Amino acid sequence: MSAPLHFTPLSGIPLVEPGDDLVALHLEAATRAGLRLENGVLVVCQKIVSKAEGRLVSLSDVKPGAAARELAREFQAFGRDPRHIEVVLRESKRIVRKGHGVLICETAQGFVCANAGVDLSNAPDDDVAVLLPEDPDASARKLRDGLLQKGAGAPLAVIISDTFGRPWREGLVDVAIGAAGLAPLTDLRGERDLRGRTLQVTTLATPDAIAASAGLLMRKDSAIPSVWVEGLPPGGDGALRDLLREPASDLFR
Amino acid sequence: MSAPLHFTPLSGIPLVEPGDDLVALHLEAATRAGLRLENGVLVVCQKIVSKAEGRLVSLSDVKPGAAARELAREFQAFGRDPRHIEVVLRESKRIVRKGHGVLICETAQGFVCANAGVDLSNAPDDDVAVLLPEDPDASARKLRDGLLQKGAGAPLAVIISDTFGRPWREGLVDVAIGAAGLAPLTDLRGERDLRGRTLQVTTLATPDAIAASAGLLMRKDSAIPSVWVEGLPPGGDGALRDLLREPASDLFR
Repeated sequence: MSAPLHFTPLSGIPLVEPGDDLVALHLEAATRAGLRLENGVLVVCQKIVSKAEGRLVSLSDVKPGAAARELAREFQAFGRDPRHIEVVLRESKRIVRKGHGVLICETAQGFVCANAGVDLSNAPDDDVAVLLPEDPDASARKLRDGLLQKGAGAPLAVIISDTFGRPWREGLVDVAIGAAGLAPLTDLRGERDLRGRTLQVTTLATPDAIAASAGLLMRKDSAIPSVWVEGLPPGGDGALRDLLREPASDLFR
Repeated sequence: MSAPLHFTPLSGIPLVEPGDDLVALHLEAATRAGLRLENGVLVVCQKIVSKAEGRLVSLSDVKPGAAARELAREFQAFGRDPRHIEVVLRESKRIVRKGHGVLICETAQGFVCANAGVDLSNAPDDDVAVLLPEDPDASARKLRDGLLQKGAGAPLAVIISDTFGRPWREGLVDVAIGAAGLAPLTDLRGERDLRGRTLQVTTLATPDAIAASAGLLMRKDSAIPSVWVEGLPPGGDGALRDLLREPASDLFR
């Protein structure tokens, strides 16, 4: 691979509400930007996908159970809302770690992240929690299929990204939580390096690498929920969930 | 931030040997590519920095100690070389996790990564281990200063990247291990989101996000050790080590 990569922010997408048509919104935004969605990767911020899919919970409807109330007491110094914690617990298969006011959860979808990805910022009002899409791979697939039907061109990939923290390092970086139209892992095992030595293990998590830089253009203080990426060689397909490590072979679960 | 981002691979840099002048090699490669290194970020693969700095250990000179021999026995099924393990242990402050033939180490520099970053692939010959730079922030600073003295222009940032695995997800992604000329963390706390709500915590790890996509162009099977990135707003400075989380507040240490 030696072509340049280009990341173009798609501006002018309005605040998304439940039921909004993400296919139409992206085709319109691309047209306004003078772009044709063909031979590239569309990276879309999780939040607008969740909102369009109605993955919203009004906190005023949430009655925190005993576990959520206990955690809120434990995290009293951090001012955690027990209703938020209740929603986090409902979205979690289990708590992987807790401490410093933070809950690191394994979500129903298999992601490990803070608060099971349940976010309060940028919600339609302060009383609403935004959940992760129920099946982000299916969301990406549906958006890709819709775009191809309505005028985008193949090869086309769609990545849904979210902003996650990491162990050992401060700061957030976007990762992929759903994908369609590209291989989740690019396996270089068996290829040869510059000296002719067979490479041992070099499997690249391409969707995560793309999402990371796209996330720089999707800052929450901007009105840019999507980024168009050109320059990756087309090819492959698969679900992002295939990139998630089996818990049994994970040293940090 | 709403300008596009461009990642341009710098080809034609020869295999680097100890003592080689990375400043001259990059200025020549940029000239050949018709680029001026000004108002952008140069991302450089760790391996050529380590080689230029002579951070090489010939395995034939390494006598594995008792701990390395014991680990090699424990990992017998994985065919680990006890001399490699010995070098890994020398570069480590401590082992964070071990299992499945993998050693996750905290390095002397403070990184948490497999094998303390000690790599065998692409070394000058099969008998040589490549260590991480002793102080990658200083390496980035030195390269940036040299480039600015010899004809590059400010604003200019340099990132040294390496390819790390992650917990919970298969596949590798490049992260920054050294940086100069950009802020390691871009703090959006206190800014307001689209609804006027104050953002709670949105601190972006900008060098890691840049390194991730640059890594897509620096695949080990290619001869591209460096990538030139344009489109980030200039500003800030700092050391990458300031992005490393304090062990005491880390839930996965």
